[in-house]
Amino acid sequence: MTDTLIDRRDLAFQLYEVLDTESLTARERFREHNKGTFDAVLETADRMARDLFANHNRAADQHEPRFEHGAVTMLPEVKRAFDAYAEAGFIAGRYDNELGGMQLPETVMAACNGFFTAANPGTAGYPFLTTAAANLIRVFGSDRQRRTFLPHMLSGRFSGTMALTEPHAGSSLADIRTSASPTGDGHYLIKGAKIYISGGEQAITENIVHMVLARIKGAPAGVRGISLFIVPKFRVDEQGALGERNGVGLAGLIHKLGYRGTTSTALSFGDDGPCHGYLVGEPHQGLKYMFQMMNEARLGVGFGAAVIGYRGYLHSLAYARDRLQGRKPSEKDPESPQVPIIEHADVRRMLLAQKAYCEGGLALCLYGARLVDDQHTHPDPDRRREAGKLLDLLTPIMKAWPSEYGPKANDLAIQVCGGAGYTREYPVEQCWRDNRLNPIHEGTNGIQALDLLGRKVWQDQGHGLQLLLQAMQRDLEAASSERCQPWALSLSETLQQAVRVTQSLGQALMSGNPDRPLANAACYLHLFGHIAVAWMWLRQANAAVAGLDTATDDGERHFYLGKLQAAQYFFHWELPTVAQDLVLLRNQDDTCLTMRPEWF
Amino acid sequence: MTDTLIDRRDLAFQLYEVLDTESLTARERFREHNKGTFDAVLETADRMARDLFANHNRAADQHEPRFEHGAVTMLPEVKRAFDAYAEAGFIAGRYDNELGGMQLPETVMAACNGFFTAANPGTAGYPFLTTAAANLIRVFGSDRQRRTFLPHMLSGRFSGTMALTEPHAGSSLADIRTSASPTGDGHYLIKGAKIYISGGEQAITENIVHMVLARIKGAPAGVRGISLFIVPKFRVDEQGALGERNGVGLAGLIHKLGYRGTTSTALSFGDDGPCHGYLVGEPHQGLKYMFQMMNEARLGVGFGAAVIGYRGYLHSLAYARDRLQGRKPSEKDPESPQVPIIEHADVRRMLLAQKAYCEGGLALCLYGARLVDDQHTHPDPDRRREAGKLLDLLTPIMKAWPSEYGPKANDLAIQVCGGAGYTREYPVEQCWRDNRLNPIHEGTNGIQALDLLGRKVWQDQGHGLQLLLQAMQRDLEAASSERCQPWALSLSETLQQAVRVTQSLGQALMSGNPDRPLANAACYLHLFGHIAVAWMWLRQANAAVAGLDTATDDGERHFYLGKLQAAQYFFHWELPTVAQDLVLLRNQDDTCLTMRPEWF
Repeated sequence: MTDTLIDRRDLAFQLYEVLDTESLTARERFREHNKGTFDAVLETADRMARDLFANHNRAADQHEPRFEHGAVTMLPEVKRAFDAYAEAGFIAGRYDNELGGMQLPETVMAACNGFFTAANPGTAGYPFLTTAAANLIRVFGSDRQRRTFLPHMLSGRFSGTMALTEPHAGSSLADIRTSASPTGDGHYLIKGAKIYISGGEQAITENIVHMVLARIKGAPAGVRGISLFIVPKFRVDEQGALGERNGVGLAGLIHKLGYRGTTSTALSFGDDGPCHGYLVGEPHQGLKYMFQMMNEARLGVGFGAAVIGYRGYLHSLAYARDRLQGRKPSEKDPESPQVPIIEHADVRRMLLAQKAYCEGGLALCLYGARLVDDQHTHPDPDRRREAGKLLDLLTPIMKAWPSEYGPKANDLAIQVCGGAGYTREYPVEQCWRDNRLNPIHEGTNGIQALDLLGRKVWQDQGHGLQLLLQAMQRDLEAASSERCQPWALSLSETLQQAVRVTQSLGQALMSGNPDRPLANAACYLHLFGHIAVAWMWLRQANAAVAGLDTATDDGERHFYLGKLQAAQYFFHWELPTVAQDLVLLRNQDDTCLTMRPEWF
Repeated sequence: MTDTLIDRRDLAFQLYEVLDTESLTARERFREHNKGTFDAVLETADRMARDLFANHNRAADQHEPRFEHGAVTMLPEVKRAFDAYAEAGFIAGRYDNELGGMQLPETVMAACNGFFTAANPGTAGYPFLTTAAANLIRVFGSDRQRRTFLPHMLSGRFSGTMALTEPHAGSSLADIRTSASPTGDGHYLIKGAKIYISGGEQAITENIVHMVLARIKGAPAGVRGISLFIVPKFRVDEQGALGERNGVGLAGLIHKLGYRGTTSTALSFGDDGPCHGYLVGEPHQGLKYMFQMMNEARLGVGFGAAVIGYRGYLHSLAYARDRLQGRKPSEKDPESPQVPIIEHADVRRMLLAQKAYCEGGLALCLYGARLVDDQHTHPDPDRRREAGKLLDLLTPIMKAWPSEYGPKANDLAIQVCGGAGYTREYPVEQCWRDNRLNPIHEGTNGIQALDLLGRKVWQDQGHGLQLLLQAMQRDLEAASSERCQPWALSLSETLQQAVRVTQSLGQALMSGNPDRPLANAACYLHLFGHIAVAWMWLRQANAAVAGLDTATDDGERHFYLGKLQAAQYFFHWELPTVAQDLVLLRNQDDTCLTMRPEWF
């Protein structure tokens, strides 16, 4: 076993050698930072995650929150961890100094949060949701709402939730029914039921601020009739003092496969007394507001999936180095000593696949975080707009690819550990169970596929896609080393085919019924996901070749050689699997579309 | 939700339309059977599995066995189910009438056991292990051992276990250390420790008969020095009356991700008083005996994986028919009603994939069971030998393919059910957890890959492979319908490439160090697994085309059309994925082999 959460050498490589994160300190917003402050905050996150989050990851899974005598009980360690996270300023890590924030770049905050998720995704859920809810209030709330709620959320006195899903409306938010009736007193009365609300009740904070989607009576049907409300558990005055209990109640806890430390709740609004809600921004704009925050939320899911995968990879790697079992095929002497299983080619395959998935997924999400930074802080307004478009395009990929391949990595980690991996005495099975949520929440991967092929690719006349091709082109041209050239060639060829198939799908979409061209959207998502991650591996390989040139000790050389071998794995073993996607997309294969329900 | 375990129409199709199981009744051994008796026993198994096994599947997962005050406690329903299974004669289902058996063909018994595993794999484990242990005694035991133990095991008074694994010897059984010292009294004294022994302690039967691998003092190193012993929990006289407690003790229960109803135990031998063991057969032949039973054991694992996959598929199918969510891309009216999610192409993809995996896996394992029958009961001795060779060759595939794709199906079932699938209120997450054991036990899939490419393919100068090609050739020629012809062509082409790559690997294996040609054995296993399952789908498609010709009602027509669509799914979406395996094998890609441990 190992207590390493994310390999710090790898993280430094990705942040500084691949992404040049240090260059951000030249920007106005980050001018008080330097590599030293970034590293200090990363070190704090890593240490705190190991000491206060990882310490109860297993216990919080085994003793999940309970709803007893009208209250939720949970391990006291969860509150301790939450409070320490808030105290260290992480809830407000990205915020302005004047709001009590640290003005950290998204790239650095995402990496910090990576440690917490890797350590204990269940406990990390509470502060992450609080940041997400606070963001909505910060950007779209009134001055009064900001004054009333933000300081207490950022300090960790209040937590936040996102209350979207209803029993009959999950993927299809257009169909939510929770209603909001205006009163003369500046608030609305909320009535309805929500389900799967993470952190909807807990034993951590004095108050919980629910960000609730509801329909104002008489609103238009569908997505254009949904508004956003603040619904606190306890009403508060402008100084944040708690007032009466608001009419939002816990209908029950939902018991999950994993992520058990985060309560998943069914909430009722207006059943136990009047439920006051405060409209955020304009009426009927709620879903638009949510979606403006969606890139970051979905990127967060992808990031979490990559690092839970990463954590399982490190566990299985440590196991494979320790565990003696069997001999190489060429060793015929039964009295020869058994070898560590890392010596077996098939175990190396499973480790290399995990490395390729997790470090590739991490690179992709850190690249996404950098786009968030560029979108908000790049000195050149054109580059800011471009970063936003690239981010829009890549968001479904950055959510879905790691959430597909992170659990795959965890599955391989179980297999590497064999019988031990199947027991609850080893941590890899929990990694898999926790990670399995990620392809489902924040828009299932099926929804991401439709978002990519049905919308994002064509947005702004395909400008995002052009920008992506240009960005890749720069890295293809930089791949001039002998080691990287064949990989660049294979990526470039795959890309050309992907562009051609995109054009043919575009024509089909324009010329009629979208059902058939969209039927195999999952293949398109897989195709572009693999292209994006191959690109990330090419970028890492380029940086590794440069690093090798100047490496002065064996440890460094081994690190870079490992990167190159993982890149090779991705280019030999993974990228070619898209051939199948290309065929199915080219043919607009209709096997799934024409399968009739009564034939099952 | 649905309480269907395995679709009976599908099972009848596979047994009678694809396999012609009825023809077995012409054989001497099965002459007292007819289609009516087969169907009656299948009906009994199905009903009993639903009433007595499925009823506590969830509860046995939630309340796993505990070790308290020196004894194991478990739900009383487990014993009730075990006793009913024994009472109905299923432990001895395959045995001679004179031993109290039913002389059922393996094909029918495998199908019966499919219902029990689909209903509750944890509880089904106990009787299955008892049959397996009894088989060893029946085939290799002395008359006295048979008299002493068999009747009580077949009646369910005693249970059985297979005690192979030790803490430092799992995949590598050659390295076991448990020792056996001869005494003058006809027994050996056993000393050592075993781990992961399923059913090693329980609260079901009066006695437990452990089949233990151990080394007689002075035995040669490696696989040639391992002997097989009967080690009962209580010593017994020849009438089966219980005597003294034998020195085998429960060192602890192991807590697993799934399969929680079956205890997984650490056992100590000789620590709590003398542990008597009775040598089975000749000294040093223990591993050989075990391996003679291995085909059936591994086939059983594959079968179990296929049917747990199948059960999850049926759950997710029922959910997809019921759950209303969203609209088709072509439907723009937000006030139109939501559709059942089975209407979404991507959901159909996930259902079709499950259907293709589970019905394909089931077909493969039923074919394997038929080979067992042919090996033992075919009137033509040549055909008996041929069936045995085919079975030897296909065993690693029949173990590994379903155990890879059954859990994949369960993963898709979770995804189809979305947030609900992630909760423990729905059964699909348990299916996945239970099924995840199957790629690990009875030889990990990595071991199966080495067994296939390192041994089975070359056995008897490749005679098994020739027989396989001939068997496939017959079905390729039978695929004369318009629907099946293109599939036959694509299978035939893939097969030719697979044969070529087999030849080149064979040359590499003969000409030197085996480490490189065996390094990508996993790809070879995947390649041949997909070919075998494509073949199964071609056989099913051939039968479906014939069925369609004579179908007289819509239900029947829909059934056959579903089969053809699933076959199309396999040929369009799955078989082509082996292109990647072929490339890696052809190149003897050395990415994994050359990755050095210190580069990770």
